Amino acid sequence: MGGMMMASAAPAPEEPILLRQDTNGIARLTLNRPQQRNALSVALMAALIDELAAIAADPSVKVVVLAANGTAFCAGHDLKEMRAHPGRPFYETLFRQCSALMQAIVRLPQPVIARVHGIATAAGCQLVASCDLAVAADSTRFATPGVNIGLFCSTPMVALSRNVNRKQAMEMLLLGEMIDAARAMDFGLINRAVPEAQLDPATEAMARAIAAKSPLTLKIGKEAFYRQVELDLDQAYDYASRVMTENMLARDAEEGIDAFLQKRAPVWQGR
Amino acid sequence: MGGMMMASAAPAPEEPILLRQDTNGIARLTLNRPQQRNALSVALMAALIDELAAIAADPSVKVVVLAANGTAFCAGHDLKEMRAHPGRPFYETLFRQCSALMQAIVRLPQPVIARVHGIATAAGCQLVASCDLAVAADSTRFATPGVNIGLFCSTPMVALSRNVNRKQAMEMLLLGEMIDAARAMDFGLINRAVPEAQLDPATEAMARAIAAKSPLTLKIGKEAFYRQVELDLDQAYDYASRVMTENMLARDAEEGIDAFLQKRAPVWQGR
Amino acid sequence: MGGMMMASAAPAPEEPILLRQDTNGIARLTLNRPQQRNALSVALMAALIDELAAIAADPSVKVVVLAANGTAFCAGHDLKEMRAHPGRPFYETLFRQCSALMQAIVRLPQPVIARVHGIATAAGCQLVASCDLAVAADSTRFATPGVNIGLFCSTPMVALSRNVNRKQAMEMLLLGEMIDAARAMDFGLINRAVPEAQLDPATEAMARAIAAKSPLTLKIGKEAFYRQVELDLDQAYDYASRVMTENMLARDAEEGIDAFLQKRAPVWQGR
Repeated sequence: MGGMMMASAAPAPEEPILLRQDTNGIARLTLNRPQQRNALSVALMAALIDELAAIAADPSVKVVVLAANGTAFCAGHDLKEMRAHPGRPFYETLFRQCSALMQAIVRLPQPVIARVHGIATAAGCQLVASCDLAVAADSTRFATPGVNIGLFCSTPMVALSRNVNRKQAMEMLLLGEMIDAARAMDFGLINRAVPEAQLDPATEAMARAIAAKSPLTLKIGKEAFYRQVELDLDQAYDYASRVMTENMLARDAEEGIDAFLQKRAPVWQGR
Repeated sequence: MGGMMMASAAPAPEEPILLRQDTNGIARLTLNRPQQRNALSVALMAALIDELAAIAADPSVKVVVLAANGTAFCAGHDLKEMRAHPGRPFYETLFRQCSALMQAIVRLPQPVIARVHGIATAAGCQLVASCDLAVAADSTRFATPGVNIGLFCSTPMVALSRNVNRKQAMEMLLLGEMIDAARAMDFGLINRAVPEAQLDPATEAMARAIAAKSPLTLKIGKEAFYRQVELDLDQAYDYASRVMTENMLARDAEEGIDAFLQKRAPVWQGR
Repeated sequence: MGGMMMASAAPAPEEPILLRQDTNGIARLTLNRPQQRNALSVALMAALIDELAAIAADPSVKVVVLAANGTAFCAGHDLKEMRAHPGRPFYETLFRQCSALMQAIVRLPQPVIARVHGIATAAGCQLVASCDLAVAADSTRFATPGVNIGLFCSTPMVALSRNVNRKQAMEMLLLGEMIDAARAMDFGLINRAVPEAQLDPATEAMARAIAAKSPLTLKIGKEAFYRQVELDLDQAYDYASRVMTENMLARDAEEGIDAFLQKRAPVWQGR
């Protein structure tokens, strides 16, 4: 795992389409199809799903950063590939694979931060919406433009409409126009819009802050968040109260609270 | 259908309470009870429901604009009519009719844009919230003021609380005060707040942009949006993946993608 | 009930940990453990639950203000007390009690306004999120910092994620950092951020505005809000239509509408 070198903006053909570099508990996944604006081909989605599965089982990874090489973060599905395989079987498999990828991000024990630049459109915008957090260059533009090519962004809307209020989500979906990073901030689609020069430092700072927490606590909390948000209030409190009790009984909570009360730094054991 | 003339601000008594004018695939419905601030009488709601049913079956309509004559967009229910028919049977029928109207907007295959000016209060605010998109004059004020007259805006809250975050919805509902268009933008209740002189051009531009898309794609997407938003994440992705596959198998998606790849304008066939 | 004197910032040891003062239909509950930054000990939560139960049955109370003495609104659970009672039985009881407290606020017939200053963290932030409305000093800071001490804010997230969009809620939960009142406004966590000198007048003005409404109408509306928001659209309209009908048949709705049509002030009878 890890140690793979970052690609330059123009990779040689033999370079892998997905790069991984691990540093200090931070796994950085980089989409590496810059000439195709990182379109989510079947191969790239498969590589992402595989790498996420590896990370889920890798206790050395505390947090994931999802980034991209080239001028675009991700322009969505690979339309050429799609039109080269017309017919129900390919499409069914493709959209099921894409949905599995997005859910793998949501279900990953570790938090995932999208590091976004250029454009994030269609399934690329869905990737941003599916990550737990997102830091974007203030020059980034976002869209769900499927409606312009006759293919409504119906799977992207699943993630988008769980990030953004309805009128705003509908605006993106029905008009298919680009919104800038400031508007994406207003909508709640991203957490930070920073000058391009600050994109890496800001993402790195956020990743380091999370990597310093107890990985057990992060895992408990992230899982609980997405489960309770789909329950009604009574069920959610019943569930979350039980989660809190289990969390309190973990070694890391005892250590964290004792360290806090003793005004010292905690030492996490991940259990 | 269509071709009806727009009313002036002060219509003669014999004028219909709802006007319809169709141009270039845009059906413009205009509430025409200006002296009653377009209060939603039984007759006006019935006219709206009938016209929406006609539009749903009319393939020439790509998008609907809901506007109003006079100084107010809509001041809610017709209180005089309500007090003239006291008793459970009238009220039950009235609120069921009103809910049916709001759901008819949500279920209409075509997108609906509210063109809002003056005031939009109580069920008038609910109309705005029920439309897919809303463009407002920046002088517009919004409220759910039922609490001030002893009748909490309980049906308006259904639409409002699905547009606006809880604390903000509760503020409108419990205080019953007017909010201005800037605040309505912040809350996510509307998509644009423009100077009055720009209200028609801005609404028209949005309607034209939507009318240029494939009507089949719009229908697929709008229906999918409101269905998936009520499902849990797994169900939503399962459903939306199937919608995407069906959408891809439609002629308009093939055409749209081919046109995009060939850098030409698509020609929609609506199938 | 009521008439208890407000505590000064530094209460004598024998002072009660929860104060109540009633004026003009406004019940002001004041957390009074200033030296412990109003940490929610078992005793303080029990006192709150008891007082809320008394208020629920007290027709003289139209609205509740939840405030706090000292430099902090509320810093969350009492960590010293928790670590003094390690083990599953205490924790289970504690988190169930805390969840019951938060739900008691949501289920209280009367609206509850949080009057927030200093800091509102962890279960203290949850208190703010659980109230129907919140007015904060613009110097207030908010956080769900459990992740920093190994104990993820899993019960606070239930209330937070029902107030704030997902990316923003996750930012607070995963980073555990303070956000200021301006950001809390943007997130939708609070309704007003005012200069400290305006905190009491602004809260009082909001409370008086609500206390002037029909208490029956407020009760009907608040209960309906939290019920309908958990239903799907069809169910929500079916339910809300029935609520509207019952509301219309109440004396206060007749009176309110007649007063409005006659341009006079209504006289509520609470039935």
